Amino acid sequence: MIPPLPPTITWLGAHDGHLELLDQTLLPHERRVLVVRRVDEVIEAIQGLRVRGAPAIGVAAAYGLVLGVREQVPLPSAFLETVRAVATALVRARPTAVNLAWAIERCLAAVREVPTLEHLFAAAQQLHRDEEQMSRRLGEHGRLLVQPGSTVLTHCNTGRLAAMGDGTALAVLFAAARAGVPFRVLADETRPLLQGARLTALELAAAGIPVQLLVDGAGPGLIARGEVQLVLVGADRIARNGDFANKVGTYPLALACAAHGVPFYCVAPSSTFDLQLADGSGIPIEERDATEVTHLAGQRIAPTGVGARNPAFDLTPGRLVRGFVSDRGVLQPPFDAGIKAVGAGGR
Amino acid sequence: MIPPLPPTITWLGAHDGHLELLDQTLLPHERRVLVVRRVDEVIEAIQGLRVRGAPAIGVAAAYGLVLGVREQVPLPSAFLETVRAVATALVRARPTAVNLAWAIERCLAAVREVPTLEHLFAAAQQLHRDEEQMSRRLGEHGRLLVQPGSTVLTHCNTGRLAAMGDGTALAVLFAAARAGVPFRVLADETRPLLQGARLTALELAAAGIPVQLLVDGAGPGLIARGEVQLVLVGADRIARNGDFANKVGTYPLALACAAHGVPFYCVAPSSTFDLQLADGSGIPIEERDATEVTHLAGQRIAPTGVGARNPAFDLTPGRLVRGFVSDRGVLQPPFDAGIKAVGAGGR
Repeated sequence: MIPPLPPTITWLGAHDGHLELLDQTLLPHERRVLVVRRVDEVIEAIQGLRVRGAPAIGVAAAYGLVLGVREQVPLPSAFLETVRAVATALVRARPTAVNLAWAIERCLAAVREVPTLEHLFAAAQQLHRDEEQMSRRLGEHGRLLVQPGSTVLTHCNTGRLAAMGDGTALAVLFAAARAGVPFRVLADETRPLLQGARLTALELAAAGIPVQLLVDGAGPGLIARGEVQLVLVGADRIARNGDFANKVGTYPLALACAAHGVPFYCVAPSSTFDLQLADGSGIPIEERDATEVTHLAGQRIAPTGVGARNPAFDLTPGRLVRGFVSDRGVLQPPFDAGIKAVGAGGR
Repeated sequence: MIPPLPPTITWLGAHDGHLELLDQTLLPHERRVLVVRRVDEVIEAIQGLRVRGAPAIGVAAAYGLVLGVREQVPLPSAFLETVRAVATALVRARPTAVNLAWAIERCLAAVREVPTLEHLFAAAQQLHRDEEQMSRRLGEHGRLLVQPGSTVLTHCNTGRLAAMGDGTALAVLFAAARAGVPFRVLADETRPLLQGARLTALELAAAGIPVQLLVDGAGPGLIARGEVQLVLVGADRIARNGDFANKVGTYPLALACAAHGVPFYCVAPSSTFDLQLADGSGIPIEERDATEVTHLAGQRIAPTGVGARNPAFDLTPGRLVRGFVSDRGVLQPPFDAGIKAVGAGGR
């Protein structure tokens, strides 16, 4: 039995409280909760992937905004200016997931009307609750996709560690399991940082869902051999036409599903849709440090002097996606402003 | 500067000599040459990937046959029976690469006429020389595919460590570099055993060819972004219609190349073509131990109790391949017996 994990993100106390983040870089072998009271620690945690997953980054950043503004104790007249300065630093932490910028923008909009720390904190808490609720809806809308006896392949980590509540793609699996549907999961290990091997395997095993790992190159071959009935992935940013960025290695799964008629679904809350973008060409793809590839657990695996390209995401064309499981139901592009109705304030 | 590697496979002395294998599991950090005098050591080296790469396995197995027969000191009347028994054990070592069975079969055919250890040894040596010659031809036939200023993506290791001479796909790159063509290489790290990160990067860097590593999921996204002009891979077994098995993770590259019009070539000597098979459905796909995926450098990376699927190869349909660079030129399927003319005895 795997004991339940501590919460991914917790805020303790009122606006004068603090943030606690489960350090995901140490899982599965060590469970350490970081006590965070400063915005630079939040930025470090986001950049260092101690907290990761598009929706989780958004919530962590909203609380980071509270911490950063609180540190500066701004005069009421300088409040909005301070919020904007802290917001700018936070938004720069990671470029690809739109949830980060969206969460910060939502908090900013909230305090434009009532510029107080209490109100900023209330906006962050509301965002946190909205994300939890959206995750529940993702599970309900997606769970009928999981056929009894089927094998579901997933990539990276899209569970309780990546988002509030049950997550995104994994929320669908948790909901199907709770409904008594028997299925098994093949989880891509997800190099370079092994979120699949370290986090997804942990979450599924803890929930009693049968899971086996795969190296990232193996999925397409197993899809071709008829060993996979459904592929579910998350997203970091979805454009209006359905093009979406997700963890590098997602696109080859979509290509293989299209070639072999296997349903490929993207699962994401409203907060991940970027209606500013007509298509995926405008999504910035973060390139991370080469040492994530050349080293493993602090040991160099590549020959000395050899570097790496390390794009953290790839782009999947919307036409390869059977459907988008959102908190508004299973949708087809093009997406319009309606999808943001819940996301834009829980109203 | 990276000092030159010891030879991948050497036989020292005459038929009473011994085999030396560079232990590829310890590269790039340690260079250890194994002195091998018994067939069970050859089988262990093949199964444990101390020697790997379809053509190299074939040559190692041919010498293994010499060692195994020599150990038993068979009477002349029992010679062929002994050869067949040792051959059976060797062929079982790894199922996917046809070169192993082909090399053994070729040596068997040679001693059917003159059943002596000296003749068996001569057949193994001839096979070794033929593979070297085929590698040289692969390089010559393929090098014009490499355009000046281009970026070539490759998967797994197909160089001097995987085959005799300069290898297969990497032989093309070594030949292009010798001809003064400037290009750079993106090398898939090739999980689970990191032959790309450990071996290909080492060989290319040692030859002064610019190389950067990629995680295996990254290639298709970079192909889509127009960052790759050519993909070259090796093969473990090629059927008559061009379907071929190669290291797991090859198929998604072929899918991406087809989707984006990037030339995808398979590079293999005659010994890798299996004319017995009409298509790829008859190629056995080796499934290796789950611990190759769940552990890295002896450390468990997955949560305790979580296993893995570990297919070592995948199948790429022949229709996705722009051409097959062989020692007979750049070929298109269907393949006929002509392709084996050199392979079947160097005559």
